[in-house]
Amino acid sequence: MNYYILDKTNIIEYLNSIENVKAYFGGDNLSIDEIGDGNLNFVFIIKSEKNKNKALILKQAVPYLRCVGEEFPLNRERMTYEIRALQSFSEKTPLHTPLIYDANEQMSAVVMQYLDEHIIMRKGLINEVIYPKFADHISTFLAHNLFKTSSLYLNSTSKRKCMDKFNSNTELCKLTEDFVFTFAFIEHETNDIYAKGHESAKKLFEDEKFKKAVLGLKYKFMTQSDALLHGDLHTGSIMLNKKQTYVIDPEFSFVGPFGFDIGALIGNLIMSYTSHMAQETEITYCEWILDLIEEVLTKFESKFLDLWNEQNESALITSTFIKEKELNEFKKEFMLNILRDTVGFSGCKMTRRMFGIAGVEDIREIKDLKKRDKAIKHTLKISKRFVKHYKEIENIQDVITIIKGDK
Amino acid sequence: MNYYILDKTNIIEYLNSIENVKAYFGGDNLSIDEIGDGNLNFVFIIKSEKNKNKALILKQAVPYLRCVGEEFPLNRERMTYEIRALQSFSEKTPLHTPLIYDANEQMSAVVMQYLDEHIIMRKGLINEVIYPKFADHISTFLAHNLFKTSSLYLNSTSKRKCMDKFNSNTELCKLTEDFVFTFAFIEHETNDIYAKGHESAKKLFEDEKFKKAVLGLKYKFMTQSDALLHGDLHTGSIMLNKKQTYVIDPEFSFVGPFGFDIGALIGNLIMSYTSHMAQETEITYCEWILDLIEEVLTKFESKFLDLWNEQNESALITSTFIKEKELNEFKKEFMLNILRDTVGFSGCKMTRRMFGIAGVEDIREIKDLKKRDKAIKHTLKISKRFVKHYKEIENIQDVITIIKGDK
Repeated sequence: MNYYILDKTNIIEYLNSIENVKAYFGGDNLSIDEIGDGNLNFVFIIKSEKNKNKALILKQAVPYLRCVGEEFPLNRERMTYEIRALQSFSEKTPLHTPLIYDANEQMSAVVMQYLDEHIIMRKGLINEVIYPKFADHISTFLAHNLFKTSSLYLNSTSKRKCMDKFNSNTELCKLTEDFVFTFAFIEHETNDIYAKGHESAKKLFEDEKFKKAVLGLKYKFMTQSDALLHGDLHTGSIMLNKKQTYVIDPEFSFVGPFGFDIGALIGNLIMSYTSHMAQETEITYCEWILDLIEEVLTKFESKFLDLWNEQNESALITSTFIKEKELNEFKKEFMLNILRDTVGFSGCKMTRRMFGIAGVEDIREIKDLKKRDKAIKHTLKISKRFVKHYKEIENIQDVITIIKGDK
Repeated sequence: MNYYILDKTNIIEYLNSIENVKAYFGGDNLSIDEIGDGNLNFVFIIKSEKNKNKALILKQAVPYLRCVGEEFPLNRERMTYEIRALQSFSEKTPLHTPLIYDANEQMSAVVMQYLDEHIIMRKGLINEVIYPKFADHISTFLAHNLFKTSSLYLNSTSKRKCMDKFNSNTELCKLTEDFVFTFAFIEHETNDIYAKGHESAKKLFEDEKFKKAVLGLKYKFMTQSDALLHGDLHTGSIMLNKKQTYVIDPEFSFVGPFGFDIGALIGNLIMSYTSHMAQETEITYCEWILDLIEEVLTKFESKFLDLWNEQNESALITSTFIKEKELNEFKKEFMLNILRDTVGFSGCKMTRRMFGIAGVEDIREIKDLKKRDKAIKHTLKISKRFVKHYKEIENIQDVITIIKGDK
């Protein structure tokens, strides 16, 4: 099938060519709505006219950045990697991945479950919603998807095949290299206008020790092929309610360092925390976020280790190679390295949101500039420390202590 | 062109279909000899009957291990990676790579310069030959090929393309994972018969701390995508004389950790040293090997840094990102990490040669078993220390001190 751009005039015909979709709607007349909030892609809601509860989403990548237009070309092959990652996540954590009805790499299009009872997590956090199941859900998502695409689980051949499938997501990896690890830490034309003359921006851009540590983390991002990552796991890539959690939008997926996805998530939870602290939200909500961070880290570690303990043979370890005592020591050190990387990447992810091109609503939308600055300063205090000292972290409690600012 | 196995009956016709080869021989009648010493592949010497100084080598991979036969199948695509690596080395260090006349991935065959004035380095070292230019040559080879295929030189897209070209050399990477990092450190059917009941083997197989450190190094080997490696750079993969040095046989090539190639080389030089020490060779020759090791490490570091200092823009660093002082600190720490990895991999490479499937002639061919055991013990003393303590190395002098046994 040759690629063409889907729109209201041709989408029904396209959908009717897909058996799974036809079966889902059972021949009902369909209504099509475009959702305008996608930055990169076109997103359509397809509904049965007879039964509005029957609905699917169609997402298609176009060869440019949707929110800017054709003057910002961006390879539509990004959808190839989104599709492949969704398929991988579906296998490992079907409860936390939207159900896929059709995936077409040639058309750069995917048809999937419409999550109409869920909201973007960032919005929920801004509105002070408590999600009692989230730590459990996301730690399952992280542990299973990271462990099961790593050399601790796969055999050598399968690991290389996995790398092969994602290695050419070059353009989106480059976006991360530029926007997460580079431009937001120097004077740069892409930075937010708010950076101009801002005291904290000036101090950040002159912090050479911080930038030296960033280079080390950027190098890890580019060369450490631990496992298949979502690649952009902030709270805007999660849709949830109090009972269910879904991870969406993995177009930045590639095989990279374990700590990058966990770091992205933790960093975004911390920015929610500093945002609420600056805005003097009820302290119980702030404390809930802190507990959530600790719970995510703790549960991730224990679930990852559980999976590892069940696994006797992998590319790395054959069952009779080493005695249990030393293997357990090895695992302990391995988990500590993941935690350290998590903290380092988390620091980069937070810092770049302060003055870089893409802010987070939690902070950039604080109307009271005094409070916004308070949140920025608080975030930077944590994030700079994370980046400069991630190698000194010894356990999860150290991370929480830095966030709380007790030492 | 469909693959077929070349032999004396069809090789002339094949050669005549290659313009470069025809031009080289200028229509002379050709004589063909098979060299019987290739383990993996068929190797033919093609000579002009008129002028015996006109000669080329043709090397072809067959879908099995040549030295065993068809009952040991081995993907002939290994030649694809050998060809690609030779092409990459030719561009970067033409003086140290055999001249390629033809490379044909479909035929798994390469025609190249016949190195008739050079011998395999291992043989030269066994015969106590001094190579005054070797450190200079091999450090150039290592610095240029490693630096120029890394994220310190390439841009992000070119680095991923380089990974793509070598990522599927799965079978040979697996051989290394098994034979360099696993089987030789436990009781295993593939081990040398000499291991049976040998005191040093028993101690090695029970050294759980050693094996724990090996796991960390094996994990690095499998996941750290620094640069294009030769993948098997022992002294049997080097042909040289007092004036020239050529690196051959890169069928194990893939994108892996910087320290692996340097470590392989250093480890093999150390085994030459321990072999000569055990056999009470003239001390000046032993000292020359020690000086050589130091010179290789020192020159590699300075040449790698020279290349880096010339390079303002790469996937990792954009020119205005960081001040010179901190960049230099970063480089210094980076080089120290390469040195540490070098030491760790070197230790694995040496240790596996003691009782694993493939020994080195330097040691396994010592007829006097007392002396052989002395060499084995000496090697293990160094290699175990390398593996267990590579992270504590602070500079090149530390490495030499461990080899000399002064601490």
